[in-house]
Amino acid sequence: MAEAIDPWGSKTVSDYAHVFKEFGLQEFPEKFREKLNHRFFERKIIIAHRDFEKIFSRIESKKPFINITGIASSGNYHFGHKAGIELFLFFKSLGAKNHFSVSDIDAYTSRDDSKIPTLKKAKEHAVSNIQDLLSLGLEEKDIFVQSGKETRYYEFAFELSKKITRNTFEAVYGHIDLGKISANLLQYADILHFQLEEFDGKMPSITGIGLDQDPHARLTRDIAKRLPYNLEMPSFIYFEHQSGLMEGTKMSSSQPETAIFLNDSIKDSKKKLSNTFTGGRPTAEEQRKLGGNISICKKFEFDKFHLKDSKELSKIRENCLSGKWLCGECKLYTIEYVSKFLEEHQKKRADNLEKAEKMAYGK
Amino acid sequence: MAEAIDPWGSKTVSDYAHVFKEFGLQEFPEKFREKLNHRFFERKIIIAHRDFEKIFSRIESKKPFINITGIASSGNYHFGHKAGIELFLFFKSLGAKNHFSVSDIDAYTSRDDSKIPTLKKAKEHAVSNIQDLLSLGLEEKDIFVQSGKETRYYEFAFELSKKITRNTFEAVYGHIDLGKISANLLQYADILHFQLEEFDGKMPSITGIGLDQDPHARLTRDIAKRLPYNLEMPSFIYFEHQSGLMEGTKMSSSQPETAIFLNDSIKDSKKKLSNTFTGGRPTAEEQRKLGGNISICKKFEFDKFHLKDSKELSKIRENCLSGKWLCGECKLYTIEYVSKFLEEHQKKRADNLEKAEKMAYGK
Repeated sequence: MAEAIDPWGSKTVSDYAHVFKEFGLQEFPEKFREKLNHRFFERKIIIAHRDFEKIFSRIESKKPFINITGIASSGNYHFGHKAGIELFLFFKSLGAKNHFSVSDIDAYTSRDDSKIPTLKKAKEHAVSNIQDLLSLGLEEKDIFVQSGKETRYYEFAFELSKKITRNTFEAVYGHIDLGKISANLLQYADILHFQLEEFDGKMPSITGIGLDQDPHARLTRDIAKRLPYNLEMPSFIYFEHQSGLMEGTKMSSSQPETAIFLNDSIKDSKKKLSNTFTGGRPTAEEQRKLGGNISICKKFEFDKFHLKDSKELSKIRENCLSGKWLCGECKLYTIEYVSKFLEEHQKKRADNLEKAEKMAYGK
Repeated sequence: MAEAIDPWGSKTVSDYAHVFKEFGLQEFPEKFREKLNHRFFERKIIIAHRDFEKIFSRIESKKPFINITGIASSGNYHFGHKAGIELFLFFKSLGAKNHFSVSDIDAYTSRDDSKIPTLKKAKEHAVSNIQDLLSLGLEEKDIFVQSGKETRYYEFAFELSKKITRNTFEAVYGHIDLGKISANLLQYADILHFQLEEFDGKMPSITGIGLDQDPHARLTRDIAKRLPYNLEMPSFIYFEHQSGLMEGTKMSSSQPETAIFLNDSIKDSKKKLSNTFTGGRPTAEEQRKLGGNISICKKFEFDKFHLKDSKELSKIRENCLSGKWLCGECKLYTIEYVSKFLEEHQKKRADNLEKAEKMAYGK
């Protein structure tokens, strides 16, 4: 039997080859990359897909498709989340019907009480999350909060539970936990319900996820097939694994030192970037001579995900490999653009607080 | 470990003594029976309780309490359901806040597709169920349909899932089935959510259930304790087991010959009552001499539950035990009052169809 991948954990999974082979993921094809004008495609940050052809053909023929993604409101957003949000914004720019789920109930039921003891706490996170979403360029109409949804959504979340056997669930997730079952039911509903006639109606949908979330994707597609609604199978594209700032980690809300949060102070972000694990050599002399070991550098990986200008990214690469820049200087470059981003972003966050509260509490 | 009782099955459980002992059920006390003016108490049809003292004291001091019960919309209501509805009406007459759940989502997710293949089917049953409820004397404001509830109810149903461990669930129900988990979450929510400040607020609640539903009751009380809302522990009273019309059966929607349905034709109900298992002797002569074996008579049990006039019930008993009436004559008595009830009830059902449809479909 295939090894179950735990989408709840935060360990690094170093090798996804078996996923491609065992679960039938498709490598993301060059022919699509060329026509999708975003650094995530250019830089092969998007590495795989299921049924993306359908979406590509909608984009080419300028027909609408559903752009649906979401993040559990289990804490503040960090740069890892920002990548997912930017992908969402890219599909928005291509004429999609846009739905971003701020998943407060999901966060509450799936996280330990030590982290999220009450639904109220999850809603506080939701406010902060919405501030980020609005500040990054989403409009109010693009965002929904799970706890503010209409009856049909919840009915549908319960309804689809009938289409999942206990054995399937346990095989996919490696556990049967009632709170996490609830969170999953809501996640399947998030993705699928917009295809119901009461919402956007039947059409292809696209969701960008991490490779470790593929079990969700597979099960969501399986449920789509079993429901009595003639739904289009949802499409997914997959992000390359995004490392944390430390060696061997994933960006994780539960380990603040591994990630830069969108509401981190400039000071904290500087400190985190200064402490980031790089591919620096033991001595300056060696590094001048050999260049940095860029393939293990978490700071360069951060740039690859987040620095928008591809020419600048090439320059960093050259400066590293040629030994022109030592790691300290290179970090300063990143600190500068991150500080500038955070400063502007946090101004927008403040401006969006009131609106975010209204959206989270439905007032 | 205690044997799990399966509330989904429809087998006769002949001996509940172990339930009383193992699970701490209280026998329903005489002091309450005397003051509760309804045949269910007088005739010891209500046999047990959990925390009924709280309700009794609210009744005596004329303070409100929550009267909450529900039936899954898995088919037409029969006389077994009618007993539960009459108990609900009794508490309504005592000044309760009344909430009857027409459980359409529950019915869909917990029943096999062979029985309820779509939510649409469950809603069709809901219409018929509401027709019965209105015809039996409930008002529109006493009834809610699960699929028509507001967001907070669903949010709460998901929220409480976090308070149930997999082990508890499996120990109580003997299974982990996602559709049935959904049904259960809604049932806990049905009972508990009215105590939230957004609804009636904290106060004692009463629910009448069959003894075989006690696992639900225990788990519901356990959840009430664990939620961060300072809820009153819900109270329960327990019906004696209600047999079907055939030997060794329970009244069951899935075996139509075991029950008289509230929309059965007079002809069908006559046939079912004529075929009911009685305590008749092998020959008329013996029966005239010995009287009927009333303790095994399903027809007399039916009368005990459903014949309102206690003097008439005593007369039947005497006529049986003395040998004055043979079973055929005795059945005619029951056929007469049942036919009269059905005739009147079905007129009311027809009058209530349009209203029931509006309530079920939220139009």
